[in-house]
Amino acid sequence: MYRIGIDLGGTNIAVGLVNDETFEIVKKKSTPTLAERDGMEIVEDMARLCREICDEVGVNVKDLAGVGVASPGIVNPTTGIIKRASNLRFFYFPITEILADKLGAKHVPVYAENDANAAAWGEACAGAAKGSSTSATVTLGTGVGSGIIIHGKILSGSNYAEGELGHMVIEFGGIPCTCGRRGCWESYSSATALVRMTNEKIEECKAAGRYTSMLNAPRVSGRTACDHMRAGDEAAKEVYDKYIAYLACGINNIINIFQPEVIAIGGGISGEGQSLIDSLMPIVDANMYCGEKARTRLKIATLGNDAGIIGAAMLESGLRGEA
Amino acid sequence: MYRIGIDLGGTNIAVGLVNDETFEIVKKKSTPTLAERDGMEIVEDMARLCREICDEVGVNVKDLAGVGVASPGIVNPTTGIIKRASNLRFFYFPITEILADKLGAKHVPVYAENDANAAAWGEACAGAAKGSSTSATVTLGTGVGSGIIIHGKILSGSNYAEGELGHMVIEFGGIPCTCGRRGCWESYSSATALVRMTNEKIEECKAAGRYTSMLNAPRVSGRTACDHMRAGDEAAKEVYDKYIAYLACGINNIINIFQPEVIAIGGGISGEGQSLIDSLMPIVDANMYCGEKARTRLKIATLGNDAGIIGAAMLESGLRGEA
Repeated sequence: MYRIGIDLGGTNIAVGLVNDETFEIVKKKSTPTLAERDGMEIVEDMARLCREICDEVGVNVKDLAGVGVASPGIVNPTTGIIKRASNLRFFYFPITEILADKLGAKHVPVYAENDANAAAWGEACAGAAKGSSTSATVTLGTGVGSGIIIHGKILSGSNYAEGELGHMVIEFGGIPCTCGRRGCWESYSSATALVRMTNEKIEECKAAGRYTSMLNAPRVSGRTACDHMRAGDEAAKEVYDKYIAYLACGINNIINIFQPEVIAIGGGISGEGQSLIDSLMPIVDANMYCGEKARTRLKIATLGNDAGIIGAAMLESGLRGEA
Repeated sequence: MYRIGIDLGGTNIAVGLVNDETFEIVKKKSTPTLAERDGMEIVEDMARLCREICDEVGVNVKDLAGVGVASPGIVNPTTGIIKRASNLRFFYFPITEILADKLGAKHVPVYAENDANAAAWGEACAGAAKGSSTSATVTLGTGVGSGIIIHGKILSGSNYAEGELGHMVIEFGGIPCTCGRRGCWESYSSATALVRMTNEKIEECKAAGRYTSMLNAPRVSGRTACDHMRAGDEAAKEVYDKYIAYLACGINNIINIFQPEVIAIGGGISGEGQSLIDSLMPIVDANMYCGEKARTRLKIATLGNDAGIIGAAMLESGLRGEA
């Protein structure tokens, strides 16, 4: 059977037709979100892309097994209402009801979820966490995003804003976070945090008259410390080790709290690949509860930007959970 | 219908007959655990107390709707095997199978769970978290224990040692914890931690020649700082405020991770009652995600030592979850 997953981003709307047995994206299309326009127009574009894709593949919209939307912000998956998505100016926006009407296929169920949760569900269905019942997907980008799957079901808290692992404090009274707290994991383990640590080290080296090859970096990014560390720079290695120590701290917390079978790591920093996992594992093992070794497998997320589409397409089972 | 809950502790085995509609403990008996003896003898005593209670109340053991055991350590609730309970020297001990045989009532199902999880389930069924679907129970005693209920189901990780909220790091590189990590919440929010903070403040006052009424305390306990703070002592208030700040930090983490409807606080420190909640709430609200107010209700746990018995008796539904 075919299902459609829609990844609604601040910049683009990406729509994919997914084979729900192989999880393959058969056909994918996207269009700019143009976030400032009216929500009805955004949903109209979603419906149009759904129809176009179905036409081109030769599937009747009425024969779809389901349609799912991955949205930023706070989404109530039970009612299909986006309670708040600031970038899109959605406020109590009943997206599934509107999309269902615009699709005009009344027997096709339409679902919605938060985008980080949908991406975690995508990784659980078809990516790094495939085959696991309980998993967490952590995205290391501008912030630290997260989605948690427990017994084959997406974890939703009482107000649908749960799973904010990035906003668990790991350093009491630490660096101020955009969320209002101090010392959040996000402030130490996002790509943004790695850039900050790199810049701090460069300034520290300048002030101390210490040479580091990072002084020659044309522009500091999340890769600067990693690249220069691998080329043998000591100061870069200090930045990388510090970053990895904080990242491992949050990962150990997740393991102690959830004992997931798999933690999948996505986002820009995950481009470091297996070497990131290899750096983390000795620290994660050394900090496990009561001298145990971690039974949770750390993996690099495999679906990239497709995780949201696949997770959204497969929402029906992710909202229901295991039988 | 009647069910039996057994709270297996390091010191005592407490057995209660529970009405599974009212959650009332109809009859309760206990016997010393004598933890050093053979496990078969411990289970024999459990079965004996079950029979005695049933006889005295006039219920046939064969008519029980179920029996549940709350055990310390790592318990696999699916197989009913205690994988490890160090104090009891249990190692892969199939407690439900043995207890079922000793009860000789083969149609009565026997369940087992970790004691903190069973207590959290008890509070969810009949105590502070009654009526909620998602809740956490945090016990502030020698350590910080915790159990998490999600959608009416006890949270079990892949190796049945999940929900160790006490061992989430909230102070990177902080105080060494018995678990091997540094900066665990338990090291700042247990009764043990409050005693440590109180002793530190007394020493600090002595060294600085500063008066505090706590100097006259015959023995420092978890109540010393609270009592002297209420009597107007400034140094005691400093200890209390510091303790509350760390406690609130962990609670905000739980809210950001799970968004439970209720967090129930039990253990020795919860004897402070509503004033503890009143101290926590302004800090919890001020640290909520993006300036929100906490929608999670903080409550003092209401069942005390009976939580384990009631939770154990009701395990069947807690392991299954909501329909």
